[in-house]
Amino acid sequence: MKNNSIPYKIYLTEDEMPKSWYNVKARMKNKHAPFVNPKTQKPCTKDDLKSVFCDECIEQELNDTDEFIEIPQGIRDFYKMFRPSPLVRAYFLERLLDTPAQIYYKFEGNNTSGSHKLNSAAAQAYYAKKQGLKSITTETGAGQWGTALAMAAAFYGLNLDVYMVKVSAEQKPHRREVIRTYGANVIPSPSDTTNAGRKILAEFPGTGGSLGCAISEAVEKATKTESCRYVLGSVLDHVLLHQTVIGQESKIAMDKYGITPDVIIGCCGGGSNFGGLIAPFMGERLCGKNNIEFIGVEPASCPSLTKGKFAYDYCDSARTTPMAKMYTLGCGFMPSPSHAGGLRYHGMSPIISQLYRDGYIKAITAEQSAVFEAAVMFAKCEGILPAPESSHAIRAAIDTAVECKKTGEKKTVLFGLTGTGYFDMSAYKKYNDGAMSDVIPTDADLQKGFDTIPKCKVNEDIL
Amino acid sequence: MKNNSIPYKIYLTEDEMPKSWYNVKARMKNKHAPFVNPKTQKPCTKDDLKSVFCDECIEQELNDTDEFIEIPQGIRDFYKMFRPSPLVRAYFLERLLDTPAQIYYKFEGNNTSGSHKLNSAAAQAYYAKKQGLKSITTETGAGQWGTALAMAAAFYGLNLDVYMVKVSAEQKPHRREVIRTYGANVIPSPSDTTNAGRKILAEFPGTGGSLGCAISEAVEKATKTESCRYVLGSVLDHVLLHQTVIGQESKIAMDKYGITPDVIIGCCGGGSNFGGLIAPFMGERLCGKNNIEFIGVEPASCPSLTKGKFAYDYCDSARTTPMAKMYTLGCGFMPSPSHAGGLRYHGMSPIISQLYRDGYIKAITAEQSAVFEAAVMFAKCEGILPAPESSHAIRAAIDTAVECKKTGEKKTVLFGLTGTGYFDMSAYKKYNDGAMSDVIPTDADLQKGFDTIPKCKVNEDIL
Repeated sequence: MKNNSIPYKIYLTEDEMPKSWYNVKARMKNKHAPFVNPKTQKPCTKDDLKSVFCDECIEQELNDTDEFIEIPQGIRDFYKMFRPSPLVRAYFLERLLDTPAQIYYKFEGNNTSGSHKLNSAAAQAYYAKKQGLKSITTETGAGQWGTALAMAAAFYGLNLDVYMVKVSAEQKPHRREVIRTYGANVIPSPSDTTNAGRKILAEFPGTGGSLGCAISEAVEKATKTESCRYVLGSVLDHVLLHQTVIGQESKIAMDKYGITPDVIIGCCGGGSNFGGLIAPFMGERLCGKNNIEFIGVEPASCPSLTKGKFAYDYCDSARTTPMAKMYTLGCGFMPSPSHAGGLRYHGMSPIISQLYRDGYIKAITAEQSAVFEAAVMFAKCEGILPAPESSHAIRAAIDTAVECKKTGEKKTVLFGLTGTGYFDMSAYKKYNDGAMSDVIPTDADLQKGFDTIPKCKVNEDIL
Repeated sequence: MKNNSIPYKIYLTEDEMPKSWYNVKARMKNKHAPFVNPKTQKPCTKDDLKSVFCDECIEQELNDTDEFIEIPQGIRDFYKMFRPSPLVRAYFLERLLDTPAQIYYKFEGNNTSGSHKLNSAAAQAYYAKKQGLKSITTETGAGQWGTALAMAAAFYGLNLDVYMVKVSAEQKPHRREVIRTYGANVIPSPSDTTNAGRKILAEFPGTGGSLGCAISEAVEKATKTESCRYVLGSVLDHVLLHQTVIGQESKIAMDKYGITPDVIIGCCGGGSNFGGLIAPFMGERLCGKNNIEFIGVEPASCPSLTKGKFAYDYCDSARTTPMAKMYTLGCGFMPSPSHAGGLRYHGMSPIISQLYRDGYIKAITAEQSAVFEAAVMFAKCEGILPAPESSHAIRAAIDTAVECKKTGEKKTVLFGLTGTGYFDMSAYKKYNDGAMSDVIPTDADLQKGFDTIPKCKVNEDIL
């Protein structure tokens, strides 16, 4: 039923904000396979991870029994700076589409990082500080994650080195400057501050760098510096856990107004925002309490769920991380350079991968021109200029609403609007100029990627 | 008294949002002097303005009797897209400063234009549509106003030509692209689409343009195109009126929580945001119902209130507009090119000018390195990266709070945080690099500006 008494934006009060994250693993009958240490080919122990990650993050990473994990007061205080985020009823979009569907979106872009990334940056910086560390390191490509972590490091009083892919640092000087303004040290990668960087520089003197190289540098710096750890922005279970504040807030707001979603849609890169959005709803689904359709949308040019292999693979192209059992295109897979819409990660969160494997999640792809068409339509009627990544979810929400118009179904749709596109205007320019082309990897392209999946003991039966 | 039960952010419900703008002129015993037609040297008639501005905006411009002017439902619907804006208690900043003062700010930057400009863009586009017009024109320098108007034009279905200062269009391609994404036509100025533009191009073939030239082009285009009008983003009374939604919301939120401000601070460029913030509080002040200190902060490099003349002057450097009685540095005054902090307007809203003349407003200046120091401090503790313009108000709020620490006074401070600085990172870079210098115009610089104030009949007694 069309319920027009619902406000355009629902903000929870600060008292209503969630006091715990939702650990969906506790409800999964099939837990995902353990991370594997590539050297031993055995499940990772805490000790394998301790030199790289903060202790509390490792605990959370390996916790698959506690359904609710308390958000410490120190993080909840920081969350109040930029949360609650609004749950928006897309009245203007509904009117434009003339659909019987009700469309809601949870908007995570109203903070300086411009995205949901700050939810996990806040938590990880807090735990680093609590552990008594002095500094943290990370890598960043486009810069959203680097900005989020710089904000969190400034708030908690930690030093931060951000290894920024050199070509990004040069092409996005403004992003770089935001990070610097928050007091972090931006090091264009490859750099001469690490062995990994020096090696690459010696081999390829003029290189613009890569995310893989930046990760290697950040990890090396963390492990070789006293009182320092490395921090990652997606894929891992504890990152997804922190992002469940998105789903928790959405669910509290919807419950408050008696709204029950039929479909929940999110864009899928590493999977942490989608996982965070759906987690509490999925928890109920796994107990048979709802029958929600969960849809992950990935770019046609980087289709890890829809065309990937379910295998053990490295989480990074530099092969420095433990191996995770996940849907992957191969850690060496690179989407076509003409792909502008973000979400270029080769793998997928092990939690999302397992839920997809078990049939709880549907995955679809969207081509980039259709994604930007949806983005521009959305910007004009709802006012928010969306990030290209988020616009994959917009595309699917619009398609669902248009389908409802044909069938007359009055579905309630919730999608995650993860961020704003203010720093993605060169991609928009391509679209506005009519110069955007769609790219779908051929079987040969895919095979090249699959060839980079490690051929090792744990993958013996798969490859 | 320190009241810690107040939430970090106060959002009004949609029902609580103001249904009228506040016309402070109705309460002013001394109305400001009328606009004067430079040709006749007589007060402007409605007919003088009709070919340039929308009818309803002219009515509002000349209305100094109705204290409340209803916000039409069609505008209130659009306001719901990006309003209410939050009234934020600056707990983190208070803690950092260790001050007994309570600091609040009204944050207007949570929309794609990144500023308060959208409040008036929405209203002016609505009235243009209601009048049956097909298109509107404007000029833009940095691009915030152009973006806001593009959003409003897209929402109401109007064509929009934005004359963007050529050098800005080239230096800020991303801003330009946001405007294009909203469907507006961006024309780098000077252009060959107007007589004014062609004349300048012929005289100065390689010129990067100026705001004055862009205004001339936009006005010419509007007056020579059927069913088209020109739209302005600051200075005029009706623009200030639309911005009173800021003050109205602030007052409703403060009244709801029993908060009574002792000091209200805003940055001053053209004066519309400051005027909009203070209007309803000033209305009470003018009836003797409060004793609030109102402080306007302007850059030391463009000190129109603190060092200007109270005289009739053109509202634009191209001398195309009517003349207004206001504090002015002369329509030919240009702040030093090393001034990075915005607020480079030569004059001041006639309403603000009159209130200042009558002693209801205090004006102070801030130097740009002190402004950026405050901006970075604020960004780190409150999370929001502020626009350089807004940071003038932050500077004064911090100084007031620090003074309270010395005196022990428990003042309640409200300031306007008009926007975000995402597109101002080159100015931040200058500050981060330690390359920012302060500039104060010398008496000779000021005199050069004063020499450009029109020597005409209405100014005879002044100059």
